Amino acid sequence: MEDKINRATTAPIGIFDSGVGGLTVAKEVFKILPGEDVVYFGDVGRTPYGGRSKEIITSFTAQDVSFLVEQKVKFIICACNSASSVALDEVSSGYDIQMIGVIEPGARAAVEKTRSGKIGVIGTHATISSNAYARFVHTIDPALKVFSLACPLFVPLAEEGYVDKKATRLIAQDYLQTMLDVEIDTLVLGCTHYPMLKSVIADVMGESVTLIDSGEETARVAHRMLTDANLLNPRTTEKPNLIGEHKYFVSDVPQRFSMVASRFLEQEIGNITRIDISRY
Amino acid sequence: MEDKINRATTAPIGIFDSGVGGLTVAKEVFKILPGEDVVYFGDVGRTPYGGRSKEIITSFTAQDVSFLVEQKVKFIICACNSASSVALDEVSSGYDIQMIGVIEPGARAAVEKTRSGKIGVIGTHATISSNAYARFVHTIDPALKVFSLACPLFVPLAEEGYVDKKATRLIAQDYLQTMLDVEIDTLVLGCTHYPMLKSVIADVMGESVTLIDSGEETARVAHRMLTDANLLNPRTTEKPNLIGEHKYFVSDVPQRFSMVASRFLEQEIGNITRIDISRY
Repeated sequence: MEDKINRATTAPIGIFDSGVGGLTVAKEVFKILPGEDVVYFGDVGRTPYGGRSKEIITSFTAQDVSFLVEQKVKFIICACNSASSVALDEVSSGYDIQMIGVIEPGARAAVEKTRSGKIGVIGTHATISSNAYARFVHTIDPALKVFSLACPLFVPLAEEGYVDKKATRLIAQDYLQTMLDVEIDTLVLGCTHYPMLKSVIADVMGESVTLIDSGEETARVAHRMLTDANLLNPRTTEKPNLIGEHKYFVSDVPQRFSMVASRFLEQEIGNITRIDISRY
Repeated sequence: MEDKINRATTAPIGIFDSGVGGLTVAKEVFKILPGEDVVYFGDVGRTPYGGRSKEIITSFTAQDVSFLVEQKVKFIICACNSASSVALDEVSSGYDIQMIGVIEPGARAAVEKTRSGKIGVIGTHATISSNAYARFVHTIDPALKVFSLACPLFVPLAEEGYVDKKATRLIAQDYLQTMLDVEIDTLVLGCTHYPMLKSVIADVMGESVTLIDSGEETARVAHRMLTDANLLNPRTTEKPNLIGEHKYFVSDVPQRFSMVASRFLEQEIGNITRIDISRY
């Protein structure tokens, strides 16, 4: 039997992000695919990507992917919205390995959920001005209306753990009033940090609006793609009680990453290694 | 007479920062020294410096200074608290040109103002954990008590123009309560963004607390040093109605810089050039 197992199945899944935000995607992967080994790279030394030029984001993304490939991963998830929008297609075309960004799964889920045909997308300045979600929604159905809005304060609020505070609620009300005005029925959380504020966003938007967590959708699509490619770890298929190993790599001092990571993953993490990403 | 004028007096003043925050220092320089030409460099492509290692901040600072020296400036102001704390002494030792950071002027002003001997310092995580203000205060008077506190959300609130909002007041109350509890009488705004929130910080702290704006103090010290070195522009000394030229350089796309800059300087700015700082 042994020689029939595709050895690559035991390889880890690679996840990268411009920083710590991608951990919300990693958390969903850990939940859906607990038996998989995961290598996470957070480019904290060059965060944030949003706001930088396409050319710079592409060169950073190429280095991030190159590092993960060196780690012999079997599949790559780009958890960074900015890199997914402007760089991943170009970078992934140079490799045989399957890669997925966060835009398509989030956009596709919104198209499936909407009844009124009015979809809202919130994200950073960079993601919103790239218009990537709206473009992908319109490749599926040009008749859908997409309303996009940058909510830049949500990122620092999430990182500082300002989750259950009145100030956060006031800021969310300020930002989201226009979404209420145009009566969307589906709202895409188009930034990896935003799931940390899901409960306050849900409260402001009300029960009639469905929230789409791009990270959760991406983890689900990754599961399907790994299944289709026969790349699931034998632990996942045969020994569902066994938990995979999670390794973290960062591009500058790991202290702040470690602090924010424990907030995002709701547990302390060890196994963080600093690397020099400029070598890749 | 002509040949008695030190030609260097007509050279510009150089100001650099990790991004846009240093514009609050530039604004004070424009106010105190309107006749001076100024070259501002904002390293928006690698912002923020705070949170990065000393080694990386030092190499970035060396490049920033090298760029300004190429612009033939006569004096350099390091408007970045992180670079001032951990890198400026080392970098400036390699040059003849006079340089000044924002820590010493802010700390010195606080020492002069305090009556109770209890000084508060607020700044980013990086500045506060560097302990640079407290160390400098204690070189002047070891008996003074310094209470330091990171207020990381103040930076994004200032950049997003969240200045007169209730949410900002609630966050300021949260952060500053401990400063009220220990009854400081002097509070150093140890981050270049914080003067944008001066009025809400003043309201929360009350009339009995003096706010020290490190940028304002730094501009004042720069004025004195230029006077002492006979380096004031002839416009400043002889033709006080003439206004100097202001040039801006940035290390990535200038759109966001331009937008936030107009908020910080309360006027639209032109004359922004993108450079490749990695060449320096």
